[in-house]
Amino acid sequence: MKTQYYTATSIDGYLADEDNSLDWLFQFGEIDEIEGVQDSFPQFVEHVGAVAMGSTTYEWVVEQEGLLEEPEQWPYEDPVWVFSSRELPMVDGADIHFVRGDVAPVHAEMVRAADGKNVWLVGGGDLVGQFHDQGLLDEIILSVAPVTLASGAPLLPRRITTPPLRLTDVQKQGDVFAELTYEVQHSSQG
Amino acid sequence: MKTQYYTATSIDGYLADEDNSLDWLFQFGEIDEIEGVQDSFPQFVEHVGAVAMGSTTYEWVVEQEGLLEEPEQWPYEDPVWVFSSRELPMVDGADIHFVRGDVAPVHAEMVRAADGKNVWLVGGGDLVGQFHDQGLLDEIILSVAPVTLASGAPLLPRRITTPPLRLTDVQKQGDVFAELTYEVQHSSQG
Repeated sequence: MKTQYYTATSIDGYLADEDNSLDWLFQFGEIDEIEGVQDSFPQFVEHVGAVAMGSTTYEWVVEQEGLLEEPEQWPYEDPVWVFSSRELPMVDGADIHFVRGDVAPVHAEMVRAADGKNVWLVGGGDLVGQFHDQGLLDEIILSVAPVTLASGAPLLPRRITTPPLRLTDVQKQGDVFAELTYEVQHSSQG
Repeated sequence: MKTQYYTATSIDGYLADEDNSLDWLFQFGEIDEIEGVQDSFPQFVEHVGAVAMGSTTYEWVVEQEGLLEEPEQWPYEDPVWVFSSRELPMVDGADIHFVRGDVAPVHAEMVRAADGKNVWLVGGGDLVGQFHDQGLLDEIILSVAPVTLASGAPLLPRRITTPPLRLTDVQKQGDVFAELTYEVQHSSQG
């Protein structure tokens, strides 16, 4: 069982631009349709048993997919924990837990729910940072899009240098995405 | 002949941290000494005929290498153009051109001096951005260190999404560096 941050990012480490848009990412279309590319996401998500995200990410998904009008489009098969100190709209029929505060007890609950499968942190960056702060992040899988944004929502607003991450895998996906996988080395190991 | 930006960066796109330090990078030692890794730099630099850098980068090199006391340690074999609006100390015996203003005429001069070889932009990010603004940047080669810094000197403070860059090569260097090579697609091509 691992707790994984799997996300797309710009080369310079932004999840979304200043307008909270992903147009720069969506220009590449479905990753499977890029020549010579196999999307790693289906295999990744098969091993996921619980999902966490922040309020901005949740609101983005709800709006992007028009989920208040078409709740059956909710894209997650696993239970989702949404961290928010604000009141957020509920998607009918979706297995969503709205939570706030310390991530540690929620993580313990997610691990129990995942029942041996992995916990997926969707984002944003600060929420993932909160998991890392408590030693609860095990792996980072980045799909690096071939763009720079110069500003926007940061990938992971933490200084992680000591110990550094450990690069475990690198994949070239056509002439578009570099998929980089890092293992988090917990201080107690170093 | 290509104009290339070759640099090390953190995962989140910083060239140096807030204290202008590269300790997070130097912890990995000489890249050749990482198990199973061949340093791509000697082959890269063999094809370079002219070098450009900004004033902060220059001052960093001068201080780091103690060049005012030991000018013979100057590390560049090719002529170097230093962009600065400030007065900077000269390294005795080094082939340095202090310049300011528009990068385009300086680039033309560098191309002539390089005589068929490549132009290497060392950094910083904004200087490289000025070359890109004028369609003078052809390739970006990033040695991505397995750390996040969250703040510092930005890799390339420009929005480059349309057209996007084209990923031409990906190399895994041990469990430390991911080397990503991007071709700049000029708008006239797209």
